[in-house]
Amino acid sequence: MAEEAAVRAQADTVRRLKQDKADPDEIAKEVAKLLEMKAQLGEDEGKHKFVLKTPKGTRDYGPKQMAIRERAFNAIISCFKRHGAEVIDTPVFELKETLTGKYGEDSKLIYDLKDQGGELLSLRYDLTVPFARYLAMNKITNIKRYHIAKVYRRDNPAMTRGRYREFYQCDFDIAGQFDPMIPDAECLKIVHEILSDLQLGDFVIKVNDRRILDGMFAVCGVPDSKFRTICSSVDKLDKVPWEEVRSEMVGEKGLSPEAADRIGEYVQLHGGLDLIERLLQDPKLSQNKLAKEGLGDMKLLFEYLTLFGITGKISFDLSLARGLDYYTGVIFEAVLLQQENEHVEEPVSVGSVAGGGRYDGLVGMFDPKGRKVPCVGVSIGIERIFSILEQRLEASEEKIRTTETQVLVASAQKKLLEERLKLISELWDAGIKAEMLYKKNPKLLNQLQYCEDTGIPLVAIVGEQELKDGVVKLRIVATREEVNVRRESLVEEIRIRTSQC
Amino acid sequence: MAEEAAVRAQADTVRRLKQDKADPDEIAKEVAKLLEMKAQLGEDEGKHKFVLKTPKGTRDYGPKQMAIRERAFNAIISCFKRHGAEVIDTPVFELKETLTGKYGEDSKLIYDLKDQGGELLSLRYDLTVPFARYLAMNKITNIKRYHIAKVYRRDNPAMTRGRYREFYQCDFDIAGQFDPMIPDAECLKIVHEILSDLQLGDFVIKVNDRRILDGMFAVCGVPDSKFRTICSSVDKLDKVPWEEVRSEMVGEKGLSPEAADRIGEYVQLHGGLDLIERLLQDPKLSQNKLAKEGLGDMKLLFEYLTLFGITGKISFDLSLARGLDYYTGVIFEAVLLQQENEHVEEPVSVGSVAGGGRYDGLVGMFDPKGRKVPCVGVSIGIERIFSILEQRLEASEEKIRTTETQVLVASAQKKLLEERLKLISELWDAGIKAEMLYKKNPKLLNQLQYCEDTGIPLVAIVGEQELKDGVVKLRIVATREEVNVRRESLVEEIRIRTSQC
Repeated sequence: MAEEAAVRAQADTVRRLKQDKADPDEIAKEVAKLLEMKAQLGEDEGKHKFVLKTPKGTRDYGPKQMAIRERAFNAIISCFKRHGAEVIDTPVFELKETLTGKYGEDSKLIYDLKDQGGELLSLRYDLTVPFARYLAMNKITNIKRYHIAKVYRRDNPAMTRGRYREFYQCDFDIAGQFDPMIPDAECLKIVHEILSDLQLGDFVIKVNDRRILDGMFAVCGVPDSKFRTICSSVDKLDKVPWEEVRSEMVGEKGLSPEAADRIGEYVQLHGGLDLIERLLQDPKLSQNKLAKEGLGDMKLLFEYLTLFGITGKISFDLSLARGLDYYTGVIFEAVLLQQENEHVEEPVSVGSVAGGGRYDGLVGMFDPKGRKVPCVGVSIGIERIFSILEQRLEASEEKIRTTETQVLVASAQKKLLEERLKLISELWDAGIKAEMLYKKNPKLLNQLQYCEDTGIPLVAIVGEQELKDGVVKLRIVATREEVNVRRESLVEEIRIRTSQC
Repeated sequence: MAEEAAVRAQADTVRRLKQDKADPDEIAKEVAKLLEMKAQLGEDEGKHKFVLKTPKGTRDYGPKQMAIRERAFNAIISCFKRHGAEVIDTPVFELKETLTGKYGEDSKLIYDLKDQGGELLSLRYDLTVPFARYLAMNKITNIKRYHIAKVYRRDNPAMTRGRYREFYQCDFDIAGQFDPMIPDAECLKIVHEILSDLQLGDFVIKVNDRRILDGMFAVCGVPDSKFRTICSSVDKLDKVPWEEVRSEMVGEKGLSPEAADRIGEYVQLHGGLDLIERLLQDPKLSQNKLAKEGLGDMKLLFEYLTLFGITGKISFDLSLARGLDYYTGVIFEAVLLQQENEHVEEPVSVGSVAGGGRYDGLVGMFDPKGRKVPCVGVSIGIERIFSILEQRLEASEEKIRTTETQVLVASAQKKLLEERLKLISELWDAGIKAEMLYKKNPKLLNQLQYCEDTGIPLVAIVGEQELKDGVVKLRIVATREEVNVRRESLVEEIRIRTSQC
């Protein structure tokens, strides 16, 4: 476009003048000309070219969504605090090298910042690697903490199912050298408590162990160098059928068909203590040191989970692999189940809502001397939970309030703005949540309507007569009842009428 | 370095093989070789080169800092809710063009993301522009909302004084067409409430109006094209003396010395209603339409602030300019005052902790048809407040708890891990905040010491005898008192002993 080219040329002129530190008046003149040209261009077509949207894979939260989000966060934070966790926060970006080499094949999804002359930075991809960096940097060897924050992945978003490029994670981790499986069991207890508390419907928590997987790969004849990549293939089993995974293993990844078939037999298995016992007797697996260790710990874990009374929702599942590179022991993933219809007997998985595991090597990767701090943790996938809660609320008749306002300060006559301002100021100073309409002379009907719309339960009405009598008329919106309350008792009266106890 | 070059060459080999979709076994072999070489390099020197830090201008929040942060946030959120605000959230990044042309000279401080094949994105610079984008995008013409989130500026950090590149803003804004100065007065009331509530010491809220400034520039003989840049110079008056600002105006910005001197006379003025009245009579200012409008509204504002009883902390100050381009009416800034020592009479400003103003044109910049939504808002500069609270806590003897744990589940004898797990599970399920040490056989002394260190007030001790008797020994840490409580009454007993009411 000729006009655009002209604007660019003019912009160059301005830039050159600035670089040359030209006479400020001359610069100002040329800037004004540039702005004029831009405005001209804007009127012609610029306005239509500007896209009014949030970046791909992201969204705003309006007041209603925020109200739902707060409910879910409250349930999760209560649980984390019930288990004695402290809370930390880390920056949204890290040095690029902090994230390098921690995520395996997923590293390509990391958002990098532009090099604007300084450090090379990337947006955090999860909260686990920043946590490990924090521990190593501060030489902390023992902590139980939670962290709720947004993470960033340049993935293909599927927003209707709650998959975003910017999304919240709610992480709880226990770092420290402890007796085996006690912290691991607590992480599973936490997932159980949160999913029960949020009443999302039936769920199952699948559990496995990276050592059992590695042992299984070894006895099936997978070469050491292929462990991680075959593990990635197994990880896809929750989305694609075995036949497809098998052909990826054999076709793309060069595994022998025999080895793949042996894996195929194992990954079908899922169960409880009985399965663990059976595998401990498995002639091949029981010969493998790693697998034996993993199975022994899995048995211990199930004993603890029995004491917690939650084994009913736990499934030891050999097909669970988890994508991330850093896991070293127990891994787990919670999925919601949905009875698709009455004819189908097996419940259908509708997706993962929590996951985690043990990562004993990650902190050591950051420590200059490689000192290890064993860690186990869980991450709640809150976005999918938001989606479900949002859809449910949408479907229900429930009217959700987005403010906590207790009283609207109103007037029935004109010229009472000053009196309303005086009264609302008194109420605010006494800690009462109060609003008024920002009009000099609002109609009473509009003021009452505002209460209906926003769910404000009380109206404090000032009028000429009330001012003379030293009272305020308090109206209860739900019942339309009106009582005169002495001005000095108003705060107490509002508190009583809106207390939740 | 020869070794490094060799590693790079090997990395190239691997990359090429992958591109060529070579035999996976061959790739695996070369990858193994690459890892080996990297490890070798790492042992020699790589470990020392890795820098363990957060990016420049950012910091982690540990549990103690988080406890302080929560206190400050709670005070601020309570205030925003008291004034009937809803809450929203927006993504941490916006389309680059959304931020373009909103911040004047400060635009160079915006963080851009790397173009990784997609949209051009920038980290948000404040919460005001995303708010305006949100309003225009959702065609909202009327809302009172708060938003608490981190913003990003590639500024020179001064971290000891609470100036970071990543920092929280706590914003409260009122959007909509209302009668003049009522929402503006509420914003100032909010600043007054928050600063009083946080007990940060004496403060003053400076107030001015962009229309008064522009009118003043006009009557002083500043050419229209220089209004914004001269405004930027005036904005520096809180940091540098008038003489320096004057020489910037005359020397760098080409203003006539006479105009600068006329400005110099006005910007010394500060006061209250009396000053407003005086300026309304000022022979030059009163002839300027913009200034007259601004002064009229300023008078109205002071009348409302008088009704709120807060004029004691408000100063109408002609030197207040505020840097951002988008303000169109009232502007304000709150600064903490510090009595430097007893000999100095005038209190010294220690920096801005809140600021804001009216921006009636910003939403229109996003609306395809340019429809305006008048807005006024305030932003609390929470980082400086954190710094002050942190330093104060550091100086005091106060021991701050970082968890809310009510009871530690302990045992006095060995082999009671299972009993501890059963009891703690009961407590969690009843909503009690409980912890235990992750040891099979912890020493009682260590368990009691843990309570001392972390401030846990109660210990529930299980032992052989207690199990037989159906009781739990409850120890009050502060008094060392011990009572036997029947197991079925334990939850109730813990609740009573730890209730805050």
